Amino acid sequence: MDDIELMTYPVERLHEFSMRVFIHFGVPETDARLAADVLAMSDLRGIESHGVARLRSYVDMLTLGRINPRPTLQIVRQTPSTATIDGDNGLGLVVGPKSNAIAMDKAESVGSGWVSVCNTNHYGIAGYYPIQALKRDMIGLSMTNSTRLVAPLWGTERMLGTNPIAIAFPGLEEPPIVIDMATSATSYGKIEIAFRQAQPLADGWAIDRTGAVTRDPHGMIHGGAMLPLGGDRVHSGHKGYALAVMVDILSGVLSGANWGPFAPPFALLQGIPAQSVGKGIGHFFGALRIDGFIDPDEFKRQVDEWIRVFRATRAAPGTSGPLIPGDPEREAESVRSKQGIPLLPAVVNDLRNIAGKTGIPFH
Amino acid sequence: MDDIELMTYPVERLHEFSMRVFIHFGVPETDARLAADVLAMSDLRGIESHGVARLRSYVDMLTLGRINPRPTLQIVRQTPSTATIDGDNGLGLVVGPKSNAIAMDKAESVGSGWVSVCNTNHYGIAGYYPIQALKRDMIGLSMTNSTRLVAPLWGTERMLGTNPIAIAFPGLEEPPIVIDMATSATSYGKIEIAFRQAQPLADGWAIDRTGAVTRDPHGMIHGGAMLPLGGDRVHSGHKGYALAVMVDILSGVLSGANWGPFAPPFALLQGIPAQSVGKGIGHFFGALRIDGFIDPDEFKRQVDEWIRVFRATRAAPGTSGPLIPGDPEREAESVRSKQGIPLLPAVVNDLRNIAGKTGIPFH
Repeated sequence: MDDIELMTYPVERLHEFSMRVFIHFGVPETDARLAADVLAMSDLRGIESHGVARLRSYVDMLTLGRINPRPTLQIVRQTPSTATIDGDNGLGLVVGPKSNAIAMDKAESVGSGWVSVCNTNHYGIAGYYPIQALKRDMIGLSMTNSTRLVAPLWGTERMLGTNPIAIAFPGLEEPPIVIDMATSATSYGKIEIAFRQAQPLADGWAIDRTGAVTRDPHGMIHGGAMLPLGGDRVHSGHKGYALAVMVDILSGVLSGANWGPFAPPFALLQGIPAQSVGKGIGHFFGALRIDGFIDPDEFKRQVDEWIRVFRATRAAPGTSGPLIPGDPEREAESVRSKQGIPLLPAVVNDLRNIAGKTGIPFH
Repeated sequence: MDDIELMTYPVERLHEFSMRVFIHFGVPETDARLAADVLAMSDLRGIESHGVARLRSYVDMLTLGRINPRPTLQIVRQTPSTATIDGDNGLGLVVGPKSNAIAMDKAESVGSGWVSVCNTNHYGIAGYYPIQALKRDMIGLSMTNSTRLVAPLWGTERMLGTNPIAIAFPGLEEPPIVIDMATSATSYGKIEIAFRQAQPLADGWAIDRTGAVTRDPHGMIHGGAMLPLGGDRVHSGHKGYALAVMVDILSGVLSGANWGPFAPPFALLQGIPAQSVGKGIGHFFGALRIDGFIDPDEFKRQVDEWIRVFRATRAAPGTSGPLIPGDPEREAESVRSKQGIPLLPAVVNDLRNIAGKTGIPFH
């Protein structure tokens, strides 16, 4: 983190503000609440980049009419366990949760539900969606494609998004295992931090505009690209690339959305692709009823045992031992729900500007 | 590759030999053919480690009665789109294809099918399964857990298998995209090659028995562990670890199989875990009917376009540009189907020993 003084805000206040801002731009109240829920969970879980820090981009897009505040979701095609949904160019924060609910409803009736979504926009943190499935004794899965930032292995251009994958598994006494990961070698946020602090990047994170691996954050930011998880060939960068491809095809191609380099941006700063090959960006949601496979309590008891066995693994030198996926986010949540959400001055400034424009108080 | 002279064999001859060997050990002919098919595809696609090179381990296990040659698969629990199957301790090469077919049949009737399998054994290459789904205009997915070799990030012990993930997408004029990847930073085969050649490992591949990252292949082999995809924390080793966790829970815990460090071994060399927490190892299969989401021809046309756009990506220096997942295996197949399968002397020796023991000619 930078050495910048952060102001902290109670999550409820940020939630209330976000909700009123969405309503101001014509989003119906129940939808606005849903969208604010997704942002608040992100801030609580310590994934600041996807919380109220993004409100400005949503506002920009709504102001310019590039996002539809009152979408009518349409089921384009379906079977008992699958569907494609057209999100009518709504907020991903609204289209996402509603599409995810359809996947869960299908699972309720036939054991599993799989929903591909086109004509949608940035949906917040991928982890929000499988966490909803936990409440219904289901294993939930979510993916989305996104604006290009990542090069395919052996390529020199930005062709894929950071294309995250999230999945969650409930425990009985232990907290759930929650996986929420981009398929890139690092996050763009870490590159920005290195840039601001004039620090070198780690090897294997990025290439410059010539395609050479670079440790200079400028090199990546100015026409370079991030590398997929794994980095170079020796470190299995082809695997991170393959995962990003999987997400792109399931979210983008299967739904009829834009894929690869054609995924539209979620912020004004990002250029609009020259070509459109589908509608909006794409998401992919899955839900599996646990009792479609095994007694849910038996499953949860085994997950508890799994967690305990893995926590007991002998620690590597200089570490406190393996974490369970979801541990850092849960820890952040327990701190932030009490102490509030720390925001960067630039984010506070954005929120104050939004307050000025809309007349909704922010303090 | 080592500088060892390789003998080559027509794939048909290896297929015939494998099949007769399985029959010799009491496997019914149709099952033996299925098992030989999986091995042959592996050798054809250039994944030698999973082809006839493994026949010796299967023979060892069958000889000792540790694998049941005539399993009766049982559906333990099901819904219209999900099932758990008990593989009756059969060959994974037989239980796998049959369970995968059940996933596809469920997809045929309700759009998707998801099958978790316990009480099974090593199932060959993960990619075999989604390739079957292509023939039915489905997107297929397969995963399996396996003997422990990989440490969780920040751990010092082998706790997870190389837990592969495979998924495939059909093109119309272009060949399919076939993803088949372990979730580890490298393969054990590469560590063995470095060991034989007395070469250092790449950084980020492995740790020694103290948990320190090591470049010495001895260090990994003698009580060390492989690292998950990504390697250390800076390079997002937590993501490779999370993927291995996902595979372990979906394959092992959800089915009632052994998970994590308790997954039983597939070869005599490997120790038997002190504790059993379920039945055998576990697989997880999925099938999605493409027409449950989109017109299949439209999908395939977009996949073609996707492939062409990605092939046209500007190449990184010193490379011929990005590959499409499945390219190397398809290239191997086109060479090997004509020129035969090259086998290491040690593998030829194993096959000759099997021939001697069973009376089935190998030449």
